[in-house]
Amino acid sequence: MSGHRTTEAGSHDQRTWDHRWGFADTQFIVHPDGAVELTGDRYPLCGYRMYDFVPYVEEVLGIRLDLRDIKPERTPKPIPPPVRNEPFLAELSGSLREDQFSTGDRERLIHSHGQTTTDEVYRVLYEQLDRYADLVIYPESEADVVRGVELAARHHVCLVPFGGGTSVSCALSLPGNETRMIAVVDLRRMNRIEWIDRENLRACVQAGIRGMDLEEALRREGYTCGHEPDSIELSTLGGWIATNASGMKKNRYGNIEQIVEKVRLVTPAGVVEHLQSLPRVSMGIQPQCLAFGSEGNLGLITSAVIKIFPKPEVTRYGSLVFPSMEHGIRFLHELAHTGFVPASIRLVDNIQFRFGLALKAHTEGMAAFLDRLKKFFVTRIKGFDPDQMVAATIVMEGSRDEVEYQQENLYRLAGRFHGLAAGAEAGRRGYMLTYAIAYIRDFVAQYHIIGETFETSVPWSQIDRVCRAVQEKAAEQHRAFKLPGKFYVSYRITQIYHTGVCIYFMYGLYTKGVDRPAEVFGRIEHSLREVILANGGSISHHHGVGKLRKDFMGATLSPAAVELVRQIKQAVDPDNVFGIRNNIFAG
Amino acid sequence: MSGHRTTEAGSHDQRTWDHRWGFADTQFIVHPDGAVELTGDRYPLCGYRMYDFVPYVEEVLGIRLDLRDIKPERTPKPIPPPVRNEPFLAELSGSLREDQFSTGDRERLIHSHGQTTTDEVYRVLYEQLDRYADLVIYPESEADVVRGVELAARHHVCLVPFGGGTSVSCALSLPGNETRMIAVVDLRRMNRIEWIDRENLRACVQAGIRGMDLEEALRREGYTCGHEPDSIELSTLGGWIATNASGMKKNRYGNIEQIVEKVRLVTPAGVVEHLQSLPRVSMGIQPQCLAFGSEGNLGLITSAVIKIFPKPEVTRYGSLVFPSMEHGIRFLHELAHTGFVPASIRLVDNIQFRFGLALKAHTEGMAAFLDRLKKFFVTRIKGFDPDQMVAATIVMEGSRDEVEYQQENLYRLAGRFHGLAAGAEAGRRGYMLTYAIAYIRDFVAQYHIIGETFETSVPWSQIDRVCRAVQEKAAEQHRAFKLPGKFYVSYRITQIYHTGVCIYFMYGLYTKGVDRPAEVFGRIEHSLREVILANGGSISHHHGVGKLRKDFMGATLSPAAVELVRQIKQAVDPDNVFGIRNNIFAG
Repeated sequence: MSGHRTTEAGSHDQRTWDHRWGFADTQFIVHPDGAVELTGDRYPLCGYRMYDFVPYVEEVLGIRLDLRDIKPERTPKPIPPPVRNEPFLAELSGSLREDQFSTGDRERLIHSHGQTTTDEVYRVLYEQLDRYADLVIYPESEADVVRGVELAARHHVCLVPFGGGTSVSCALSLPGNETRMIAVVDLRRMNRIEWIDRENLRACVQAGIRGMDLEEALRREGYTCGHEPDSIELSTLGGWIATNASGMKKNRYGNIEQIVEKVRLVTPAGVVEHLQSLPRVSMGIQPQCLAFGSEGNLGLITSAVIKIFPKPEVTRYGSLVFPSMEHGIRFLHELAHTGFVPASIRLVDNIQFRFGLALKAHTEGMAAFLDRLKKFFVTRIKGFDPDQMVAATIVMEGSRDEVEYQQENLYRLAGRFHGLAAGAEAGRRGYMLTYAIAYIRDFVAQYHIIGETFETSVPWSQIDRVCRAVQEKAAEQHRAFKLPGKFYVSYRITQIYHTGVCIYFMYGLYTKGVDRPAEVFGRIEHSLREVILANGGSISHHHGVGKLRKDFMGATLSPAAVELVRQIKQAVDPDNVFGIRNNIFAG
Repeated sequence: MSGHRTTEAGSHDQRTWDHRWGFADTQFIVHPDGAVELTGDRYPLCGYRMYDFVPYVEEVLGIRLDLRDIKPERTPKPIPPPVRNEPFLAELSGSLREDQFSTGDRERLIHSHGQTTTDEVYRVLYEQLDRYADLVIYPESEADVVRGVELAARHHVCLVPFGGGTSVSCALSLPGNETRMIAVVDLRRMNRIEWIDRENLRACVQAGIRGMDLEEALRREGYTCGHEPDSIELSTLGGWIATNASGMKKNRYGNIEQIVEKVRLVTPAGVVEHLQSLPRVSMGIQPQCLAFGSEGNLGLITSAVIKIFPKPEVTRYGSLVFPSMEHGIRFLHELAHTGFVPASIRLVDNIQFRFGLALKAHTEGMAAFLDRLKKFFVTRIKGFDPDQMVAATIVMEGSRDEVEYQQENLYRLAGRFHGLAAGAEAGRRGYMLTYAIAYIRDFVAQYHIIGETFETSVPWSQIDRVCRAVQEKAAEQHRAFKLPGKFYVSYRITQIYHTGVCIYFMYGLYTKGVDRPAEVFGRIEHSLREVILANGGSISHHHGVGKLRKDFMGATLSPAAVELVRQIKQAVDPDNVFGIRNNIFAG
């Protein structure tokens, strides 16, 4: 592998959208007959007509969509001339090639936001941002990074680490009050696997590698890292560490903090790192732990030693249906404490279950399917209501024996909670849907529908309380803002732990005719997070805090803990070179 | 549960030795016929005559023991009058009951050391310590702790957290150059379970609870914590966190950092803590992680929320023998990457295997056993040499099905590496031996034998190199110091991980006639640690750094990381109230 040379931001073989989510060959379009289709051939969802998509949206939001009424994107984009720190630029050009930095408007714009729906994507498409990057730098080695940090510190330039650009917490929103030149450091050319240690099953990897590229490169060598966040196609190893990411298959491979053995964090005070890569140590305070969740506040993560695993002998999908969410949750609770937890299990509520059906081809559409299902369940099993039933999708990985053992026990246990096996294909489709979510967001946004996902971790006992509180608060806010149609709240349980779970919510609003829709959406989202915390949920399970959730840090850390984090920042970055101001540093 | 009131240090129902390891009802004694016996009835090893013990020691050390030649303990102990900070003492007596603090010589002495063989136990028994505690405080609530920290900060008193007193890294050695009054804070009266959350399987526990008491209390409620360090009888929850402890059954229950969800750390700058106890979060930098391995440098850990598990349906022991260490290690490597890793598996080398036999009752003594074994193996299996063969001990826990699954697969896999099942009883005995090790140390010390254990974590590829390097260095040092007899080096692999293992060494020397034996031992131990690090081993797997291993921190953390840890200390404890000076703070 070698660093790629294009200056197209985010590109690596494939072109991505400048501001929307994902790959430019992929978007939902509407045919004249009202059918929706996902273009390209990247996903199993691509290339066929979905006739139930629009009716589903209309049903759940209680609206009629006018498919010709497309919200116009603002063009050209307003972008002010860059702040130029000439001495810095002069020294930088002495140490980097010309194609390693850019002040071009398009690159600046692309690097001025993440993927938070209203605060970033909506604003860059339809309105404007508070602040734009003044410069984009593409380091190709740690030496480039170290030199860049030195120069930035000397010349009072603000540096912002940038990986996949997939943040949904406004962690990449540039602070409006930053008067220094802001140089966004795009790490994606640092995407090499430096070495693979086959005997000890680990690899040293540069932090700018994207998840999919990492997996491809490892698989060519017979390995997998196993970290599969929903953003895996675009997000980077460094970004995973900086946000304390979680992967779908964490039951088998661990979350990012279990996958990474060693991190290099380049700060203005030097490289903070442990000098050995070891399975487990008692070495006193482990400062490396501070890189996890650092959200760009402390420095640039340049590489990490990660665990790797031989490609599993078997990967098998599965799915289950349960009469109700309650049954499904009780099943998960029991499963979490057994010895046959599969690599991944997700439980989606009835609304998402039906959404999955709505995305099928017409012949297999919702009405037909539900009809068939209803007949089956009504005749065969008492108490299965198509408007109540929920589904779990499963991925099992490992040796053939291990997967057999999991499958056998898993399905037997599910039976105790009235769960029924619903086939491997339904499981596989469930996971594929994950990659489509953000494209759907961008598709419906054109029709004045603002949709966002947010997640939390909660103890088992609080699942129901948190979900009901979100539902009730959403209803209350809908009335208070006198919004059209109905709101959309749906959730799934995406991770199970010994003491609790991750709940992943989808929330959507129809905003046609609403004054300042993005602001209204933001205020409601804030109030939903408030009730999540009030009912025992966390500030975030894996998205992070960024700027979006900064107001809730007071409920998260004790005052002395907040002050300690401030002093840690002061210790490694006294001049605030890394001035992205996330988390407790947000204004 | 309620706090106990005795001021006997370390006592809780049972009396412990003041300076030696463990319970005062338990010690090895020699009968006139040369048989050795462990007194009391606390362990399966107690109450019978071991005729092979002395011959074993004589064989492995190449010496003849004179059992009447007992090294005389120094009595009375030299202990200087305490440094008294009168204003502090005056205010303290205003806030604590009289039985909550003591300046008595015996209590001061007991609280002036841990269990490091030469630097602490040897010196307190036979020589003297550099520095003695001036005061011992017994807080009974977090309010007591907070008040104590406030007073200490105001009056310039040095505070030293004290749990089970089982440190083997000189973490409890008081700094000789400390001129302030040193108040050792014995947390063991803070030993209550504050609450049990059955639905979410966790409990909030005061940090001074000892492992055995925690387990007993939890088991009464139907639960286990599952953390079983070898010191479980004496060490405390707070000590586990402060040293980043590892438990025997970590494969099932996790090491301490996986068991603890939330910690309260009382520092002079306030209570550093996360405000919610959650399965997993992305909340930005997590300052709580700094408590793990803090080794008394930052503050006092007062309580923690820990995971608990329903008592396992089945606990089953097992054992295996392999023709050689190499076979055993290859088996462990394969096992570590399967789905049937048991709660615990340990592989002991031939020397320890034979030691286990030497501790049997006479009728089952080594000679007879080896003879039987030899006949069996020679006739049945080619290549099993009693002088080469090694043994693995196994603990499986979980549901009946899970344990069956593990056992079946485990033994089948072992077969591929010429492993043979050697029975549950041998496995159980192997684990019981763990508790006897430190008593043996204290027993042989009387006869001029200094023995110590030390551990390291290493990648799989370095196991052989590290073990050989230790062996060679020990031999070289033995010659260089012209020491009598032979040295004793034996090791076991006590933990397996994805990328490596924990190796636990035992090292012993006969020092009769040696000038300054403790110093010689210390220098050799230091040189062994040097070669461990030079060959890819860590500074420690679970004992910690304390003062014993301080010289190796430069090989462990980058300079910027060391400076960051200094600044963290500065942030929470600017006046060095917690002046125990471990790790990078050691002189």
